[in-house]
Amino acid sequence: MKKMIFTLLHLSPPPPPPPLAYNIFSFTSHHNHHHLTKTLIPLSRFSLSRRFFGSLNRATPAMDAKESSATDLKRPREEEAADNGSAAVASMETENGDQTKEPACFSTVIPGWFSEMSPMWPGEAHSLKVEKVLFQGKSDYQDVIVFQSATYGKVLVLDGVIQLTERDECAYQEMITHLPLCSIPNPKKVLVIGGGDGGVLREVARHPSVEHIDMCEIDKMVVDVSKQFFPDVAIGYEDPRVNLVIGDGVAFLKNAAEGSYDAVIVDSSDPIGPAKELFEKPFFQSVARALRPGGVVCTQAESLWLHMDIIEDIVSNCREIFKGSVNYAWTSVPTYPSGVIGFMLCSTEGPEVDFKHPLNPIDESSSKSNGPLKFYNAEIHSAAFCLPSFAKKVIESKAN
Amino acid sequence: MKKMIFTLLHLSPPPPPPPLAYNIFSFTSHHNHHHLTKTLIPLSRFSLSRRFFGSLNRATPAMDAKESSATDLKRPREEEAADNGSAAVASMETENGDQTKEPACFSTVIPGWFSEMSPMWPGEAHSLKVEKVLFQGKSDYQDVIVFQSATYGKVLVLDGVIQLTERDECAYQEMITHLPLCSIPNPKKVLVIGGGDGGVLREVARHPSVEHIDMCEIDKMVVDVSKQFFPDVAIGYEDPRVNLVIGDGVAFLKNAAEGSYDAVIVDSSDPIGPAKELFEKPFFQSVARALRPGGVVCTQAESLWLHMDIIEDIVSNCREIFKGSVNYAWTSVPTYPSGVIGFMLCSTEGPEVDFKHPLNPIDESSSKSNGPLKFYNAEIHSAAFCLPSFAKKVIESKAN
Repeated sequence: MKKMIFTLLHLSPPPPPPPLAYNIFSFTSHHNHHHLTKTLIPLSRFSLSRRFFGSLNRATPAMDAKESSATDLKRPREEEAADNGSAAVASMETENGDQTKEPACFSTVIPGWFSEMSPMWPGEAHSLKVEKVLFQGKSDYQDVIVFQSATYGKVLVLDGVIQLTERDECAYQEMITHLPLCSIPNPKKVLVIGGGDGGVLREVARHPSVEHIDMCEIDKMVVDVSKQFFPDVAIGYEDPRVNLVIGDGVAFLKNAAEGSYDAVIVDSSDPIGPAKELFEKPFFQSVARALRPGGVVCTQAESLWLHMDIIEDIVSNCREIFKGSVNYAWTSVPTYPSGVIGFMLCSTEGPEVDFKHPLNPIDESSSKSNGPLKFYNAEIHSAAFCLPSFAKKVIESKAN
Repeated sequence: MKKMIFTLLHLSPPPPPPPLAYNIFSFTSHHNHHHLTKTLIPLSRFSLSRRFFGSLNRATPAMDAKESSATDLKRPREEEAADNGSAAVASMETENGDQTKEPACFSTVIPGWFSEMSPMWPGEAHSLKVEKVLFQGKSDYQDVIVFQSATYGKVLVLDGVIQLTERDECAYQEMITHLPLCSIPNPKKVLVIGGGDGGVLREVARHPSVEHIDMCEIDKMVVDVSKQFFPDVAIGYEDPRVNLVIGDGVAFLKNAAEGSYDAVIVDSSDPIGPAKELFEKPFFQSVARALRPGGVVCTQAESLWLHMDIIEDIVSNCREIFKGSVNYAWTSVPTYPSGVIGFMLCSTEGPEVDFKHPLNPIDESSSKSNGPLKFYNAEIHSAAFCLPSFAKKVIESKAN
């Protein structure tokens, strides 16, 4: 899971839900992607009427919302919709035959489709055809949607951003986990920040050397929804080595014993909004503090195609803080913006870590219950660190 | 350029324009992507009213259509469109203030956006925000559109499918060219099939050993449009080694002297519709015949995420025909479906070719006029052959 919302440390009550960021149709400025960090507009600047999201609020956030919110998107055949575009946008038929307003997040872009738009990737949108909405809820932190797509399996959406689809989640989960864990010998104690769907846990559990996995996820609804709708992902929770803490990952890390983890995996959201902190120095400092000498961190680090300026800053920060090695890797995830996602891989001062040459292969026979690896292998591990020239130039100048 | 339309050999007049395949809103069957070749539906089965594309036909296909068809997509602010969705779909304002029906291909999905949908990738769509339509024409073979996008620069669209954007064309052009040419010593004679935008020519021209470049593109309009709107791509045509033939690539290859090329680059469209032949044995046989012993071919080979069954068949065919080596490589191109595109790289019997370890680096200093490489380097060359486990299993079983 790419997204995790963190509370700000100084807030004791849960913060108000983040501004709704999806299906925003306009940007008043056209970002130059080479200067993205300078022009990012906080989500809160985009005012959307609550009406726009009214249908989201009808579903109760409790798990039994499944039944009440499950809605077949049976509609007039869509070529008719295309021929009669304006009329088709507003209405849909529910399972019991009622005509009702289609949930706003599905109807406003392509009728019967979910579209992902964000100020983080202005001027482009990726859309998936919706077969059935399985869950809509509102947690203390975010809007949670699960839908059955036509061709990507079930899809988890948080605050309008696709977190995982059954069809391509393997790439993200396997890479964010095994890039760090296969780069050090015998990882024993691992911390996962975020990753509420359980997919990273599933992957960590493939490593027989691991004795203990702490996981800190802020949003219990994400955990519950994943267990209900994504059993092949949430299977990670069944591992007896897992200690799940529902809470603020930043606070958890600050309270962690110094030098206590072999590896920290940060499965975070994008650096606008509440997760901004996770891309700044103090957070990386507390990660470094919690790692043993020669320990490793792997953190979600955006897209080379969209966010080079953000990446440049992260690399600079990491280079200051991690006295071992600092590397950028990337992989293909079709349903993430621009089709790729990157990772920062760093190690603390201590035994040298050569991330590009994995030394701790996964023993597939020891993890049969989690199914075979679909994406990761030792070759693609090394290949992930080979960068296009436009990115290599920038990253290497900051990392060395 | 990914797309090239070929005539069928036995047709002497130009074939009717291919059925229009974009902005199709429905698929009657839900393809299982593991069995795609079995369920592919010919484009002609999708009947779309001409009205739907009426506005495309208004523009004359001549080059001076630029002025008459250029249209600012100045519109009511789009948050208003979102609040009042149905009303916003149908109308737009032109430069001189008239209200007019928005060109159908832009209006039916997201007002003011271009959306790419195809039976080749059912259930998903990628959309780009349109700033201005720069050209719309209809050649003997296809619909040609050029628009200025909000965040991807100028975009070339053929029959509704994005062929290149200024922002990410480097990845495709550099990889499809340098993967083959950097894998053999001193390539001298090169054939490009398709690639009417000139980008592959631009890249071939970086190799000082090359003495002659034949290029066979069927659609002169694509060449002309590229020269007018994409000068940084079409700069390839300025190289004096280029011999451009406007014609049918299949016929050109059949008439080529046996053993005459060091390398053939096939910049083709998808294997449904007229380019179907290019993914079948007879075509690969004529490529093999035209290559010298130990000569190489690189051909566009779809997406690992979307088209494994097609890829499996291509690999089987190539394994039968190319007695040297047979390899699959892939790279990231954000505006192609699933964010990746693959390449088949094969060599004929003769001096051994190890595609994974390039031996003919590009001398950057010799090609200053074409600008520096943006994407390709020797590391990313080798990395392109590292496949995810799900694909590796299938491809290696067919390739060996």
